[in-house]
Amino acid sequence: MPFDPSHYRLCLVTDRGLAHGRSLVEVAMRAVMGGVTMVQLREKVATTRAFIEEARALKRLLSDHGVPLIINDRADIALAVGADGVHVGQTDLPVAAVRALVGPDRLIGLSITDAEQMGREDAGAADYLGIGPLHPQKTKPDAATPLGFGGFAKLRRMTTKPVLAIGGIKPDDVPMLVEEGASGVAVVSAIMAAEDPEAAARAFRAAWAAEAG
Amino acid sequence: MPFDPSHYRLCLVTDRGLAHGRSLVEVAMRAVMGGVTMVQLREKVATTRAFIEEARALKRLLSDHGVPLIINDRADIALAVGADGVHVGQTDLPVAAVRALVGPDRLIGLSITDAEQMGREDAGAADYLGIGPLHPQKTKPDAATPLGFGGFAKLRRMTTKPVLAIGGIKPDDVPMLVEEGASGVAVVSAIMAAEDPEAAARAFRAAWAAEAG
Repeated sequence: MPFDPSHYRLCLVTDRGLAHGRSLVEVAMRAVMGGVTMVQLREKVATTRAFIEEARALKRLLSDHGVPLIINDRADIALAVGADGVHVGQTDLPVAAVRALVGPDRLIGLSITDAEQMGREDAGAADYLGIGPLHPQKTKPDAATPLGFGGFAKLRRMTTKPVLAIGGIKPDDVPMLVEEGASGVAVVSAIMAAEDPEAAARAFRAAWAAEAG
Repeated sequence: MPFDPSHYRLCLVTDRGLAHGRSLVEVAMRAVMGGVTMVQLREKVATTRAFIEEARALKRLLSDHGVPLIINDRADIALAVGADGVHVGQTDLPVAAVRALVGPDRLIGLSITDAEQMGREDAGAADYLGIGPLHPQKTKPDAATPLGFGGFAKLRRMTTKPVLAIGGIKPDDVPMLVEEGASGVAVVSAIMAAEDPEAAARAFRAAWAAEAG
C-alpha cells in the first residue's frame, strides 16, 4: 500500500505475553480503531506456521484500514503474506540482506540503542529507525540502557531518516518527543496490556494532535 | 550447485545441543570428511544473526566439497546465503509459500510423521520427504510416534518422491531401509553427538556401500 510519513505516527508493536490471553489480531484491530497508524507483528514463541497465519489475518484486516503491516525479523514471512515491511534488531538479518530479499518497495526498520550502532552501515541502509529504550521497562529487564530524552535527542540528530521513539513510552512523553524531532512513537505495553486498547491508542493520538496537528 | 539423487544418501541434521560445545561448522566438516552428502542446518535457539553467519560459513565450506546446504525453516536465511534448499516441518511455512519465495531451482524438503500428512498438498509440493521417526528418540521425548520399519515402508509406498528416513537411525538400520526404498537417511545424534563425527559418518556410508553400491 502507499506509504506516507503519517504512518509513522503511532506504531503498535505486538507482544503476545502482554495481551491477557486476547488474540494479537483482536488487540491490534481495537488499537487501529483508536488511531494506530502502523502495526509491527513480533512473535518470539509461536511456530512459523502460527506466525504466518496470524500475519495473513492481520494483513487482511489492516489493509482494509489503510494501515501498514511490518513483520519483525522474518523477511520470508513478510514476503509470503505481502506485508509492507520488515523490522530488524541488531541480532537479526543485516539490513542489506533483507533489502536483497524484499526489494526497494518494502520498508525496512532497524532498532538502534546507541551511537555506535547509528554509525554502522545497517543504519544507513534502513528506511526508518526505532530508537530506544527511552525509559526503563519493567517488561524487558534485559533491555539496553535507557536513553532518556537527552540520549534520544542526541541519536536523533545523527540521522535525517524517520525515527520512532520506543521503550516504555506514555502519551505524556509525546510533546517532548515531537520537539526532539521524532516521526512517531512505537508502543508495546501501553497498548498491548491496556484493558481498552482503543482508548489507549486514542490517548497517544490526542497527544500528537495537540502537538503536531 | 547441481543436485543429484546421490546427495540424499546421508544427510546430517545439525543440533547444537548435541555438539558437546563444538561448533556446528566443525562437526559438519568432520562429518563431510566421513562421507555426509547433504547438511541441513537447524537452529532453534540462536539469534537470526548468528544463524545467518553460521549458514554463510557452512555454505562456503560445503560448496568446496560439493555438498548441498539445506536450511531448516528459514527461507529468508536460505535465500540470503544462497543455500541449496529449505527443509520445513508441519508447523513451518507451507511448502507452496516456500516455493513462491525460493523458486523452482532450490530443493524443498518436508517432514512427514503419518499417512494423513502424506495425503496433503504440502507433501505433493515438496521435492523430497523426510519420513520418521523410525525409532524412539531419547533426545526428542516430544517426537511423534515411532513408525518402525513397517510404518516407514507403508508411508514410503505412498509416494514416488525421494525419501529420507529419520529418527534415531544407526548404520545397522541401513540395509532394511534400502530394501524399503529409502533414498537415504537423515542423521542427527548418531553423528552430532559422536566423539568422532568423521568415523560415525563413515560407518553409515559403509553400510550404504554394502547395500546399494
